[in-house]
Amino acid sequence: MDLMSKVIELADKLQESTVCCRRDLHAHPEAGWTEFRTAAIVAATLSKLGYEVETGNKVIEEDAMMGRPDQQVLADKQERVISQGADPFWVEQMTGGKTGVVGTFSFQQPGPTVAIRFDMDANDVCETEDVQHYPRRGKFNSVNPGVMHACGHDGHTSVGLAVAKILLELKSSLTGKIKLIFQPAEEGVRGAKAMVTKGIVDDVDYMLGSHFGFKMKHTGQLACNVVGFLATSKYDVVFTGRPAHAGAAPEAGRNALLAGACAALNLHAISRHSEGVSRINVGVLEAGTGRNVIADKALMKLETRGATSKINQYMAEEATRIVKAAAAMYDVQVQITEMGGAAGGKNTEELSSQIKNIAQRLNIFEEIIDTCDFGASEDFSYFMERVQENKGKAAYIMVGADLAAGHHDSRFDFDEKALAYATKILASVTVELLMVKEK
Amino acid sequence: MDLMSKVIELADKLQESTVCCRRDLHAHPEAGWTEFRTAAIVAATLSKLGYEVETGNKVIEEDAMMGRPDQQVLADKQERVISQGADPFWVEQMTGGKTGVVGTFSFQQPGPTVAIRFDMDANDVCETEDVQHYPRRGKFNSVNPGVMHACGHDGHTSVGLAVAKILLELKSSLTGKIKLIFQPAEEGVRGAKAMVTKGIVDDVDYMLGSHFGFKMKHTGQLACNVVGFLATSKYDVVFTGRPAHAGAAPEAGRNALLAGACAALNLHAISRHSEGVSRINVGVLEAGTGRNVIADKALMKLETRGATSKINQYMAEEATRIVKAAAAMYDVQVQITEMGGAAGGKNTEELSSQIKNIAQRLNIFEEIIDTCDFGASEDFSYFMERVQENKGKAAYIMVGADLAAGHHDSRFDFDEKALAYATKILASVTVELLMVKEK
Amino acid sequence: MDLMSKVIELADKLQESTVCCRRDLHAHPEAGWTEFRTAAIVAATLSKLGYEVETGNKVIEEDAMMGRPDQQVLADKQERVISQGADPFWVEQMTGGKTGVVGTFSFQQPGPTVAIRFDMDANDVCETEDVQHYPRRGKFNSVNPGVMHACGHDGHTSVGLAVAKILLELKSSLTGKIKLIFQPAEEGVRGAKAMVTKGIVDDVDYMLGSHFGFKMKHTGQLACNVVGFLATSKYDVVFTGRPAHAGAAPEAGRNALLAGACAALNLHAISRHSEGVSRINVGVLEAGTGRNVIADKALMKLETRGATSKINQYMAEEATRIVKAAAAMYDVQVQITEMGGAAGGKNTEELSSQIKNIAQRLNIFEEIIDTCDFGASEDFSYFMERVQENKGKAAYIMVGADLAAGHHDSRFDFDEKALAYATKILASVTVELLMVKEK
Amino acid sequence: MDLMSKVIELADKLQESTVCCRRDLHAHPEAGWTEFRTAAIVAATLSKLGYEVETGNKVIEEDAMMGRPDQQVLADKQERVISQGADPFWVEQMTGGKTGVVGTFSFQQPGPTVAIRFDMDANDVCETEDVQHYPRRGKFNSVNPGVMHACGHDGHTSVGLAVAKILLELKSSLTGKIKLIFQPAEEGVRGAKAMVTKGIVDDVDYMLGSHFGFKMKHTGQLACNVVGFLATSKYDVVFTGRPAHAGAAPEAGRNALLAGACAALNLHAISRHSEGVSRINVGVLEAGTGRNVIADKALMKLETRGATSKINQYMAEEATRIVKAAAAMYDVQVQITEMGGAAGGKNTEELSSQIKNIAQRLNIFEEIIDTCDFGASEDFSYFMERVQENKGKAAYIMVGADLAAGHHDSRFDFDEKALAYATKILASVTVELLMVKEK
Repeated sequence: MDLMSKVIELADKLQESTVCCRRDLHAHPEAGWTEFRTAAIVAATLSKLGYEVETGNKVIEEDAMMGRPDQQVLADKQERVISQGADPFWVEQMTGGKTGVVGTFSFQQPGPTVAIRFDMDANDVCETEDVQHYPRRGKFNSVNPGVMHACGHDGHTSVGLAVAKILLELKSSLTGKIKLIFQPAEEGVRGAKAMVTKGIVDDVDYMLGSHFGFKMKHTGQLACNVVGFLATSKYDVVFTGRPAHAGAAPEAGRNALLAGACAALNLHAISRHSEGVSRINVGVLEAGTGRNVIADKALMKLETRGATSKINQYMAEEATRIVKAAAAMYDVQVQITEMGGAAGGKNTEELSSQIKNIAQRLNIFEEIIDTCDFGASEDFSYFMERVQENKGKAAYIMVGADLAAGHHDSRFDFDEKALAYATKILASVTVELLMVKEK
Repeated sequence: MDLMSKVIELADKLQESTVCCRRDLHAHPEAGWTEFRTAAIVAATLSKLGYEVETGNKVIEEDAMMGRPDQQVLADKQERVISQGADPFWVEQMTGGKTGVVGTFSFQQPGPTVAIRFDMDANDVCETEDVQHYPRRGKFNSVNPGVMHACGHDGHTSVGLAVAKILLELKSSLTGKIKLIFQPAEEGVRGAKAMVTKGIVDDVDYMLGSHFGFKMKHTGQLACNVVGFLATSKYDVVFTGRPAHAGAAPEAGRNALLAGACAALNLHAISRHSEGVSRINVGVLEAGTGRNVIADKALMKLETRGATSKINQYMAEEATRIVKAAAAMYDVQVQITEMGGAAGGKNTEELSSQIKNIAQRLNIFEEIIDTCDFGASEDFSYFMERVQENKGKAAYIMVGADLAAGHHDSRFDFDEKALAYATKILASVTVELLMVKEK
Repeated sequence: MDLMSKVIELADKLQESTVCCRRDLHAHPEAGWTEFRTAAIVAATLSKLGYEVETGNKVIEEDAMMGRPDQQVLADKQERVISQGADPFWVEQMTGGKTGVVGTFSFQQPGPTVAIRFDMDANDVCETEDVQHYPRRGKFNSVNPGVMHACGHDGHTSVGLAVAKILLELKSSLTGKIKLIFQPAEEGVRGAKAMVTKGIVDDVDYMLGSHFGFKMKHTGQLACNVVGFLATSKYDVVFTGRPAHAGAAPEAGRNALLAGACAALNLHAISRHSEGVSRINVGVLEAGTGRNVIADKALMKLETRGATSKINQYMAEEATRIVKAAAAMYDVQVQITEMGGAAGGKNTEELSSQIKNIAQRLNIFEEIIDTCDFGASEDFSYFMERVQENKGKAAYIMVGADLAAGHHDSRFDFDEKALAYATKILASVTVELLMVKEK
Repeated sequence: MDLMSKVIELADKLQESTVCCRRDLHAHPEAGWTEFRTAAIVAATLSKLGYEVETGNKVIEEDAMMGRPDQQVLADKQERVISQGADPFWVEQMTGGKTGVVGTFSFQQPGPTVAIRFDMDANDVCETEDVQHYPRRGKFNSVNPGVMHACGHDGHTSVGLAVAKILLELKSSLTGKIKLIFQPAEEGVRGAKAMVTKGIVDDVDYMLGSHFGFKMKHTGQLACNVVGFLATSKYDVVFTGRPAHAGAAPEAGRNALLAGACAALNLHAISRHSEGVSRINVGVLEAGTGRNVIADKALMKLETRGATSKINQYMAEEATRIVKAAAAMYDVQVQITEMGGAAGGKNTEELSSQIKNIAQRLNIFEEIIDTCDFGASEDFSYFMERVQENKGKAAYIMVGADLAAGHHDSRFDFDEKALAYATKILASVTVELLMVKEK
């Protein structure tokens, strides 16, 4: 309990710098696989603290990177952050968008390995110009047009660095090993798979993850058991037909627009599944170039979800067949690319109970809730799945936060007090798991 | 016949400068309603020759301008051409995209009024970078990215200026009045209506129009009677729904993407019409912003056509009803904007015969064809319709030209020798119509 | 406990006649609202036992009868059963398909009112001619072409009569009142509403219902708490367009077939609901008369379902809007008729527990399951809802039965031993609720 | 000219018996391939007149019979007509629906072969019960429920027998050979192919066909050149999926109804063809058995048409691909059966001119029109195509007739005076072609 008090004291002391870090990151949001500046700051900070730091090829499996921007975009962003002062030592290792960072510290005595995952990427959202918007009033609104931290990952990353500091302050009391995992490209559930595939959690005994404010919209709330992770698959579909003059020779065309329209309608008509929640969404359809030309190109972005990996697989298989049939119907070519995905998943109950117990002892939360139904997708599920396969324990918690608007909204903002709550609970649980056990 | 020989001689003499003019215009293509540079050159040239020149509000009815770009685009283009050296005197009169030009010359003796229409606008096409492309080899390929003269209007405008010169050379032999009409925004059939509505052909007795190479793909060919003008309507449709998270609350969304997809499919299923050719095309559908968001916006660009105005009206009414029903089906709002249109139309047979007779006498064409089936739309039909309503005669001719690729193709190019053929036939017919008749 | 032993003894003694009754009903299946023969047998039997029997207008509210066959069909069936020997006294009271029967018996001492509902109707299914089919081997397969007891209601009705007998055998030990409700037209969830609206359960304190073999496919099983009742709505939709010769004048038609096709596709694309299970099915679409005629008629039979009445209402409202929009899209008329419906519903937990307790004491079941997830619709939910609104308690139980094939399959058959299990549990629970309580 | 006068005289004399024959046939309509009674009467009449008569296998190629009813239907109809007094000698030869009849007569002197085709079948239409309906007033309305002569083939057949009589009256003046072809199953364009494939017109020099009242709606009119024959294909499509309970396990179904709906919509969206008229119609869609069952069967009847055989082939190929893709989209099986078809076709101009010349000389028609645009399909085109391939000449003429209502309408009736006009022109043309030429 003494150690816990120390955690609280350290977190409170760090809060000012944590807020400061969060605001800097908020002002410089970076979309998935281009978090060069953010990741370089993380790497440099961890390194300076004494963590062994790995990035680039060492923590990212290239073949498993989903939804990676094209090389030109990656190169441009990389170059830009260097020109803006990011440390080339780190940034160069991240070439190709391999912006994941893992900081490891082995305490003196042997013990279990605990990993915590923090995600770093921002959203393709244009931040509001409303003068009442808190980041705008505080002058830390986004300087990168079209990109915004609208899901709180700026906060997650800042919390990660605060936890990193606290744990090293307490290192004499701890055993085993801590792995702080900073993941790129959580949005679109694209990044986790590449880190898991690389094997970075294969040695982990306890794995923690967290999020701000999803269904827990008040600062001071905590949910120790998040359920309802939806398994999901993300696909980009490109239909390629043949253009023709719509007035003079319409029969010579192969209509990619209609193939897309037909696919979209029939995808949404995929039958519900009796075993649980299923979802389908065609979120984007862009087809054609001119009013008087039979459209020869169509791009469709879709996703499926399921309460379980089995249901999602049913949805994904149906979707794939339908997309191919729509192409056949309009005699066009089709290419389907997997752009992201997440497994279903469940907390290890024992670990959730332990977290709840710790939270109660901490006595700082106004409300501790047993289960929070997520009803969405998070690629933390990949980490969870791998750790549990290896007989480790994993848990994902939800940290309440007052919100200015919903996640992904251009007016999103969260109460910065929540940063301290997250830091305290994550650090406390880690300390409890790693502290020298009295005999 | 003496006059005709002179026409031929003058046209041959002018051919070098006509080619030169065509190449300059080809290098500086301007899309519909932004032909500031082209129109300023036309106005200045006609003015210097002695024509009375009108532009802007005097020749364009603002309310009848269809598919006009937004004010910012117009202002930017206007400013740019001035900075590039276009004559501000003319360009300023064209503010708001009123880039039509009419040059009028009244010959000494009274007589009929002849009008010839030339269109000036380019296409939203990226010119090929193929090194074999003739304009590229000749270093007159487009300097304006994404815009290209891919329909030969650079040639039409150049021919217009050559005809202007020839007629004034022969002025002592001519009677009545000549009106040279340089029209903006023929692509998308957007511009003619605004000039016709302004009344600029209300006094016209004979009206001529022409095009290069449509279905007449060899230099030296001529068709004196173009048939099969399709009446057409162009619409932009915007569906506005309500976004929602596709995983967490799909039922809260109002899906504009599916409204668009549903509309597109059912539009293409509009029943054929037993009285003649009908067409429908949804050429563009752009919907949604993110894969995991129920799409709340969709833009659809469509067109209908018909062998007659009646059939096109049937198609347009069906299309309008279907679009509204698709909106109702997905509980989204819809806005339909008319972006262009053309009437059906037929040459005055007597005038076509007269042209054929002149062409035969000219003895320069390798092949003279009675009728060429256009099978497409041209807003010259608005001029034709108005002149014929006023008991005038109108004809549209097709001047053959060897082509490098089809119209609107990024590799389009036409044989510049065709410029002389067009100049000769248009000038000859005008001279025949206006020459002092011997008693 | 003495009484319970008696119940068991009586049920075993009655089993032979119960089986016999079941086979007679199985051989003479009657579809919803035409159960004239079945209902007359029920009425006569109850009457002879001493029950006060009501049928026709006294137990059915005409305006609330859903999906009633047309008058001609009803008249034909009614006439036929009389010619086949059914008692005209009862059958005449049922004119118009009011085939519900309620048998009431008031015991000497005051006490609570218990109601049990049994459904009587058969399915529009052609019974298999497979020689291995048990009813065929036993020579009690259906004599009515196209109608079959493929859902076990023959068994339900037979059990009802067995329970009726047992309760009167034990009448000296019972108090209060028993109401045995024999309901028509449960298939398509059409009949319960008309009995509930008539008010026949307004005085009921305890309400019981049961079914054979749904998700409990072994004789000897019992589930005391059935959950997952889906609220549902059933609609018939008729589109009326205008015929036309498909070759000579297709544009003159108004295509009801395409309106139906368009509706069907878009209905199945109704968005999933985040609060729970939703369903949509267009089960029948019949359109058009000739290959070369634009179809001017289409009939569509659809249903919606939802985990709660709220979700079903969402589905039904979406469906209604879509159907109307599809009609607008094809410029046809549409008529929507509600053909059936059921509420969602939940057992009163206290009563389910009591039933479980009794079942355990009975000591005849091999397996007693807490909850069985129904995942379908039953208009027993209307009875349940009304009784619970009046502060009464209601429960629906599932009695396991070995099945030859699934419900509604042409080879459906259930193990007749299950008849005794159902009789015993229903009679025991009623006896427990009504027996003279020792002071 | 003497011979022509005789033709007119004979036709007038025969008119009463022709009308009588027409009324008998009208009262006993027989649908395609079941014209046992009609064909037996034709065969017996021709035979008695002296024609060599062939029927059954000798004139029908079994493999080329399209849209034949199933064997049971054929057997029933065949048996029925015998029981009603039809001559078993002829009927038995027609077993399997081979109801075509060919009567041949070779005149004494050698000369060309002339064939005339008459169609015999009735429509699947319920004749009106309106008391004003002429056949009803005359007591010769249909005795066969659901079948009606609503296209005038009763008249065509009667005219054929009248022509047969006239030609033999004039046999001493004629040369060569006459073939009178009585064809079954013209409705649905199913029958001609089987006769053509059998080779019965392979030796024909001149081929004539005619129809009453299509676009020529006044008695006394004649069109000698019918144009606008649409080539056509008729298909029956059966989708076979898998049923499932729509509430309990919708994902287990394979939805044939939605496959049909999807196919229907996308079929109607087949692109128009720039070379001429195209048509598509799904006239019938019947799917599903129960509201709460995922439909496992769908039957679709469709037809394509085209101004030319090439365009129809384009439509048919598109249709086939779309149907297969719709099956793939819903993971159901599909079977496509060709049920009928006709070629495009054009009269031999020379023969049409000759007919016009004869018609003028006859001096009995009030109006003789050059060309009549058919805009529909007729399988006479198969005969025409084969004869023309063999360098013969073929023509199809339209004989005007006052109509009570349009073809295929339940109130259809034609002016019986038109029978004489048809008899006269067909007999006259034949006589002109076959008469002994003066040297």
